Formats: sequence, structure tokens, C-alpha cells
Amino acid sequence: MYESNEEMMFTNARIEEIMYNVTFNPKTRDGDIVVNLSVVDKNNLDEVLELFRQVMYSGLSVCSYVKLFDEGETFSGYRVAPGKAGIATACSITIDGVFLKQGIPVRPKFGGIVQVKDRQPIRFTDMIRYDSTTIDPLEVLMSQELTSVKEMTRTGSGKVLANFREVPMTAKDDVDHTINRLLTAGFYGILEVGEPNTPVLGVDVDRDHMGVIITGGTNPMAAVQESGIPIVTKAIKGTLDFREMKKLA
Amino acid sequence: MYESNEEMMFTNARIEEIMYNVTFNPKTRDGDIVVNLSVVDKNNLDEVLELFRQVMYSGLSVCSYVKLFDEGETFSGYRVAPGKAGIATACSITIDGVFLKQGIPVRPKFGGIVQVKDRQPIRFTDMIRYDSTTIDPLEVLMSQELTSVKEMTRTGSGKVLANFREVPMTAKDDVDHTINRLLTAGFYGILEVGEPNTPVLGVDVDRDHMGVIITGGTNPMAAVQESGIPIVTKAIKGTLDFREMKKLA
Repeated sequence: MYESNEEMMFTNARIEEIMYNVTFNPKTRDGDIVVNLSVVDKNNLDEVLELFRQVMYSGLSVCSYVKLFDEGETFSGYRVAPGKAGIATACSITIDGVFLKQGIPVRPKFGGIVQVKDRQPIRFTDMIRYDSTTIDPLEVLMSQELTSVKEMTRTGSGKVLANFREVPMTAKDDVDHTINRLLTAGFYGILEVGEPNTPVLGVDVDRDHMGVIITGGTNPMAAVQESGIPIVTKAIKGTLDFREMKKLA
Repeated sequence: MYESNEEMMFTNARIEEIMYNVTFNPKTRDGDIVVNLSVVDKNNLDEVLELFRQVMYSGLSVCSYVKLFDEGETFSGYRVAPGKAGIATACSITIDGVFLKQGIPVRPKFGGIVQVKDRQPIRFTDMIRYDSTTIDPLEVLMSQELTSVKEMTRTGSGKVLANFREVPMTAKDDVDHTINRLLTAGFYGILEVGEPNTPVLGVDVDRDHMGVIITGGTNPMAAVQESGIPIVTKAIKGTLDFREMKKLA
């Protein structure tokens, strides 16, 4: 069974499309990254950015760079309404795009929720596979009241958004090298890199592959939602020149 | 790739488990059906039941039977908190359970959103497959602000929750017969029955199979959410003796 209507697109197809557009070079720190767009009331913007800062400071986002959009401004076909403010933040698919442009055949698999205890990720507790959903899993999961991102930033334990991809074990050196480059460029959101042929955070990998788990770019937004502040997030919204973004935390 | 942690359960496994417990006989109208449990503020109960009634009257639920739980009462391990009221409604997996107990090998595939125009279902616009998510798709989709169930009840056009299963084409007579029995017993929520080997609402079927689309048991709850009334719904919560339920609309 597959779907025959061209207007319905599975998330993995959208991911592939947008990975292809990533041109970010972690060495030179220029080029386009994938971003999520969040929209909040202008009145709440300071409070929201403070929450973003806390979550980013705890390492629970992809990186700490943001770009703000004022009312009336447009990003990727979306116009920020009067009284609202837009915040673009890095999406974890950026990492997949960088892997791809390094020639590493990366396969984004699913988005889910990871239980963390004393700053140690323990296991996935929920997941939705990209190839079986038309709606972004992390967009979905952040609205199900399953996360405790704020608690995690305070206590070191909680449930956070994360996503999972596989790379061939033969690419291990290249993967490690690229991850180090990304870390140096301020992309700290790599939660766990598994060993070849070894389950990681309770998830098995395909033979001769290894799993790479990255924190969800939507964790700051989940913290805002947990605080009862209205926020609308479009995950994987578009690409943005990294040089247009500013460090927040 | 599959998951190795026994605490993480995909929705199709939970569906199979609960289908097995269905004992409802549409001919005698007794036995257990699968229900969703919704919890609302006691103060809002009358307004919520009025919305439920409207949605059920429009044929957008599985049937019109409910069972109310007062504060302090317990259903399937869930205790209704003080100041709250619980409402059990039929879940569409009941239909799968009835098919199964008739000896029809039924395969629930996905939950999604169907666009309806002038009371005619047109196509699926979104979907999440049961075998790839640990969270119930209809529970997820009703919270994404993608539905317009209330508009549909008013104008005959809108987006409603529905789900999709496949049955072998050789079972067609048995399926038709069972559906007629279910209709007579007040289970009116069959949205569309496809022809063998023919796509239905934009979704292809496996060779020698046909698709059966049933309205989501969570449409009444989606209408409540669209009205801005707080409601918490646990889909596929448990089974309930049909004789304990009362007709609402």
C-alpha cells in the first residue's frame, strides 16, 4: 500500500528535498542551513527568548543561533502577522544535510522522545517514523504534552525531543570528523553516536550501520509550550543563510 | 531497523491486542466494544455533550453511544479527577474487532485526515501509519489544528478524522454483510468501502485487497477542541460492555 495522491507527501520525502538544499560548510561557517519557524505574540517575545536561551544553554537544541522576523516580514512563503514575531532556529535536518554534502549516505529514520536521567540519555520512549507520516513527528510530539524539557534544564532529568538517523559503519571516520567540525562551529546538539551494529538508546540499527541521535530543534519550543505560552511552530520550514543568524545563548 | 525495548509499543501492536478483546455481536448488540476516554471539566460537560451530539448526528463518529464517568470513578486504570467528567465513546477499532471475530483477516493501516466536500469524502490529506508510531495517530492529529469537524457539521464540507484498513477481496460478501449488521446496530461510521484493487480516497491498496474507511471515533473530541474547550482524550483506552452505554443523539 502506498498513496497515489501527489499532494500528500511523506515526511521523509520532504526531508530529502530540503537536505539537498543544505550548503552549510562547518569549516567556513557559511552557507544555508535548515530552520524551523516559530511564531509567538510580540508581547511574549522576551520571555520566549529567555526560555530558548535556557534550553540552548543546556545543550538541548541543534545550535544557539536564531534569526528574528518582525510583523509583516516574510520567510519561506510565511508572512508574520501583525502583533506577532517570528523566530527561525536550526533544524536537526541541517546535520543530515551536512553529512550528505560530505558524501555520507545518511538515512533519517524517525523523530521521538528520549528519556534523560542525570544528563544521561537513557532510551527512546516514543517514536514516529518519517516514511510513514505526512506530518513532522517532532511538530506532532511537542504538542502531546509528553515532553518535560524545562524540568530537564532545571534538574538534568526529563523527556526531550530527539531524532534518529543511520549511517554506514564504513563511514565512521568521516562521520566522527564531520561531527567534530560541527561541534567546533557551534552545532552541539549531537546526543549520542552509537557503535556499529549496536542498538543505541533502545533502538536497533540495520546491519553494518550505526545510529546517530540528535536533539530536536523543537526542544526550545516545547519548553515554551510547557510554560503555557502560545507558540506555533512549523518544523523544517525552509533554508536560511547561516550568516544571517545571531548567537542567542 | 526495529526497536528492541519492550516498553515501547507500536500502535499496530496495541490495536491487535485490543481487537482481540472485542466480543461485540452486532446481531444481539451485546458484548465488549473498544472505547476512547475523554476527560473534560464538569462545568463544560453539558456544552461538550451538545457538541458530541451534533457531530454524531452528522454521522461523523462510530456510533452515538456514550458512557459517562463521574469524578472519582475509574475506567481501565484511569481515575476521573475531582471537578472532571469522563466520557467513553466508541473507537473505530471496534469495527476491526467485529471483522476479526467474523473470521475476516483485517489489517488496520493508518489514521489520517479526510477532506469532505458537500458531504462527499474526497481524499486523505494527511496520514500516520499504525506500524510506525507509538502514539495513536488520531490522538495526534486531533491536536494539530488540521481538522474542521464543526464546519463540516454546519456546511457539509471540512476536514475530518478517519482511518483506513484493508481486507482481502475474497471476503467482500462477508465484509458487506458485516457492515450491514453494524449499520443496523447503530454503527453508522463507515465512510467508504473501496472496490477490490482500486484506490480509495487517494490511497492505493495491496493487490487483491480492498480498503475500508471508517470515521474517527475522535471527531466529536476534535469539534470540542476546535471550540476552544479543554479536553484530554486517550484513544483506544479499553473495552466496555456495549449494554452499559446509552444513546446520545
